[in-house]
Amino acid sequence: MTHKHFTIDDQATLEALLMHRRDVRGNNFLPDELPQEAIDQILYAASLAPSVGFSQPWEFVIVKDPDVRQQIHQSFNAVNESAASEFSDEKQALYDRLKLEGILETPVNIAVFYKPSAEPVLGQHSMLEAGEYSVVCAIQNMWLMSRAMNIGMGWVSILNPEDVKKALNAPENHKLVAYLCLGYVKEFYATPELETLRWEKRKEIESLIHQDRYPDSYE
Amino acid sequence: MTHKHFTIDDQATLEALLMHRRDVRGNNFLPDELPQEAIDQILYAASLAPSVGFSQPWEFVIVKDPDVRQQIHQSFNAVNESAASEFSDEKQALYDRLKLEGILETPVNIAVFYKPSAEPVLGQHSMLEAGEYSVVCAIQNMWLMSRAMNIGMGWVSILNPEDVKKALNAPENHKLVAYLCLGYVKEFYATPELETLRWEKRKEIESLIHQDRYPDSYE
Repeated sequence: MTHKHFTIDDQATLEALLMHRRDVRGNNFLPDELPQEAIDQILYAASLAPSVGFSQPWEFVIVKDPDVRQQIHQSFNAVNESAASEFSDEKQALYDRLKLEGILETPVNIAVFYKPSAEPVLGQHSMLEAGEYSVVCAIQNMWLMSRAMNIGMGWVSILNPEDVKKALNAPENHKLVAYLCLGYVKEFYATPELETLRWEKRKEIESLIHQDRYPDSYE
Repeated sequence: MTHKHFTIDDQATLEALLMHRRDVRGNNFLPDELPQEAIDQILYAASLAPSVGFSQPWEFVIVKDPDVRQQIHQSFNAVNESAASEFSDEKQALYDRLKLEGILETPVNIAVFYKPSAEPVLGQHSMLEAGEYSVVCAIQNMWLMSRAMNIGMGWVSILNPEDVKKALNAPENHKLVAYLCLGYVKEFYATPELETLRWEKRKEIESLIHQDRYPDSYE
């Protein structure tokens, strides 16, 4: 057996990274430039992700151009207004106080696309989403590597994907999986902001686990 | 600034974990039981994942029952036969030699579901997939925590999700995101098996990165 053996200290390091990773928004980013080596290291982490049939179906657009970012930000504004109206009055008041993205506050945005394969992909026959899911694994790798470098990352999902694709001149068959904002931070919060503000409660893990099958009584 | 600062050594540990994580199949698993504490730690890692609007939309079914696993394995066999026929004769010959799952060889399987929220979710308005994607982030956390504990994990996507839901008595509105096989291993391969066997080539990361927008010449 020649493979790498990880230690209990390595496990503790990973656990700390998972615990201290945060979704960072514009109220917590610093405008300082990110070194190219940091961006390269984050994309390298993405490339180490698992992918269905080793298809590596990810593509990345590094967005620094202010005009492009303004277009993306306009899409955020339009969607955000419509999204806010879904909530009760009480929640809307809180929603309106939240800063939910850092598109313009960060030095770098990264759009992450899923590029469907022209050929059949091993393992992507009955569960077609496996391709997109591979891209999400790459994004989580990016998030953790960013945190290990004390760099913040935020995932903006309040966007119209078609607007983003147009702004980025993306091919029609590519699917936008994530739009990410990256930069150094003022602070990594100790807990998720939405937990601190009691927008949602943390679920008890035990309540989310079933043994062998769902009980008939499940609701 | 009171938040946790990670060091260059922590970054190196994470990089090693990302590099040495493998998708493990039935030809490399050992039948030894996993301690309950190990399973708990892996599920704890899942619970630390980011989720859209802090919705934590994941549920887990820990499958040990041999009868349930036989049913899942039958689904694999049926889909696998149909999947193999997609490939050219040459690739089919290689495909038939591959062991692509460890449903019966592992001591524990974990089915991971996305449970849609009955209420609106912050950030899940224009990109509805953000819920499922949160579940995938949790799965990547599980994969990395398993590897840190020198436990192998394999993701089986060659399944009919409806068969799996039926075998697990899953609620109709839950979506199967992943079916995972976990156990100790004979070996973690140094590189992905599909890369070693030249099923697919590793892509050069530079070819997957664009600056500010896709070029008009992109194909």
